Amino acid sequence: MKGQRGLHSDQPLKVVAIGGGTGLAALLRALKNEAGRSRDPWKLTGVVTVSDNGGSSGRLRAELGGIPPGDLRNCLSALTQEESVLSDMLNYRFKGEGNMAGHSLGNLMLLAMADITGDWVRAIRQLSGVLVTVGRLYPSTVVPVTLCAEDFDGTRYVGETSVNSCKPPVSRIWLEPLDAEPLPEALLAIMQADLILLAPGSLYTSTVANLLIPELRMTIARTEAPVVYVANLMTEPGESSGLDLETHVATLQAFGCFPIHAVLANSAPLAEPVLRRYLDEGGSPLSSTQPLLCGVPVFSQPLLDPEAQLARHHPTLLNQALREVIESL
Amino acid sequence: MKGQRGLHSDQPLKVVAIGGGTGLAALLRALKNEAGRSRDPWKLTGVVTVSDNGGSSGRLRAELGGIPPGDLRNCLSALTQEESVLSDMLNYRFKGEGNMAGHSLGNLMLLAMADITGDWVRAIRQLSGVLVTVGRLYPSTVVPVTLCAEDFDGTRYVGETSVNSCKPPVSRIWLEPLDAEPLPEALLAIMQADLILLAPGSLYTSTVANLLIPELRMTIARTEAPVVYVANLMTEPGESSGLDLETHVATLQAFGCFPIHAVLANSAPLAEPVLRRYLDEGGSPLSSTQPLLCGVPVFSQPLLDPEAQLARHHPTLLNQALREVIESL
Repeated sequence: MKGQRGLHSDQPLKVVAIGGGTGLAALLRALKNEAGRSRDPWKLTGVVTVSDNGGSSGRLRAELGGIPPGDLRNCLSALTQEESVLSDMLNYRFKGEGNMAGHSLGNLMLLAMADITGDWVRAIRQLSGVLVTVGRLYPSTVVPVTLCAEDFDGTRYVGETSVNSCKPPVSRIWLEPLDAEPLPEALLAIMQADLILLAPGSLYTSTVANLLIPELRMTIARTEAPVVYVANLMTEPGESSGLDLETHVATLQAFGCFPIHAVLANSAPLAEPVLRRYLDEGGSPLSSTQPLLCGVPVFSQPLLDPEAQLARHHPTLLNQALREVIESL
Repeated sequence: MKGQRGLHSDQPLKVVAIGGGTGLAALLRALKNEAGRSRDPWKLTGVVTVSDNGGSSGRLRAELGGIPPGDLRNCLSALTQEESVLSDMLNYRFKGEGNMAGHSLGNLMLLAMADITGDWVRAIRQLSGVLVTVGRLYPSTVVPVTLCAEDFDGTRYVGETSVNSCKPPVSRIWLEPLDAEPLPEALLAIMQADLILLAPGSLYTSTVANLLIPELRMTIARTEAPVVYVANLMTEPGESSGLDLETHVATLQAFGCFPIHAVLANSAPLAEPVLRRYLDEGGSPLSSTQPLLCGVPVFSQPLLDPEAQLARHHPTLLNQALREVIESL
């Protein structure tokens, strides 16, 4: 069906994908071809969570303040069209045992650009320019935020790494400050979107974390664009241990307060040795044979990358499956 | 005079400039136009000292090993043809009080590229490519070296920062290991050069430091290209305190063991407040009214940048003066 505007118009599709570092990066990588083609390229925008307080990002955040750059860097890397000296640098991590060990050069490049330009939007845009990327990226907020949660036993978790190892489900989850403002550029992209994708990724610390920014959540609720949840392949030891796909959808509905129009889940089984490794660490496959979960149509498709040693979305399979979901909406 | 080859040939001039971070960078900046012009561009090569053990370079060297990147970075920055996002990043320094404070992002970019490519020549060449620079740069050696010296009282100085604060003149100065090898690319550039410039810079820790690499010194001695010493504007508290221009020339003759064909020195007086600041810290102007020092013709020209708050070579004045020296050789 082709219409005059929206999802089935003749205009290039405007897609906003929302999530965290790894899952959103995988989704952007799967959609990059659509955004990079010369004819009717999709207008692709990533909105990236910034509540990370672990790893290189966490150390840099503790030392230099500001927002953590790691998830933005992953997504920037996903959007680069070609390997280059610069993309090599963006993805480089220092070795050794000292102060630099484990730091990502790309994180440092992002922080430097943010300081030079005085502005995250400009910093990312300028780096995107020299990296030759497709699509745009915005942090979900430029306010330094702390993710906090409380489980049903009353245990409180402060900071993303703490919430990541919580005992789910959580009864409360919030960002401090409560009223962190999103960037107007990100809101505008959501308002103009034909399609909104909730990227796979850590349920609470990536997906829900973005929806806790009030203006962001409310802008999604107000737009007419359909919302598709690209579900995780596996549950995550800690924050989503033992939660099934239905609970994932219910969680997003509860914290997002906007309708979800479709769920895209994986139907392919993991190879036995890969599955064994996950089960040993407390992760299990996330899938469903149900056509509807919490009232939302579920599209089950084989999405696994058969070559990967971990459970990973295959870019081409994910791309094709998403196009089928879009056709059906 | 125009000949078939060498300094006065019709071919583009091949110039090799040898020195350390600040002075060599100033010289390269002064010659950049000649190397960047579309008609008969000079072939410019910088050979950069790598015995630095202070500052961001020293910290990185202590932590990650390898050669210190700071002087190379300064020279790379001097050779960039236009301001760009990348040159901004190359010149960025982290603020604050923590582990990152004072680190140069350009140093980190160079170290990362050296690790990624496994090769300093390729690392610098690839960075030069994306930065759009003119000319080529080589470290004087890729062997991690330590500069050592002994003064006439028998006091021994180990490491560049220590030698920098020595009581001159020194009786002995050497690199450990003694037989550090230069890069074949640098030797080839010297062998093919029409002109060799000894850049201004710290007498022992920048200029002499390069000449302590046996193959480098011997290759300069074997080439027929004239050698011009672009003298410092000021003596340096510590390593060149109280040394006059004649002693500078004699020192280079003694440690270089090759003929020097001309000295280019500054004749312009420093503005009173700038001079006062230098004198207070133990530096004094380095100039001479003599036409010959140690048998070497001295060209005295006003070379000072009148706008600078420190004693700095003015790129255009230095460029013009050098062209006059070349004409006279």
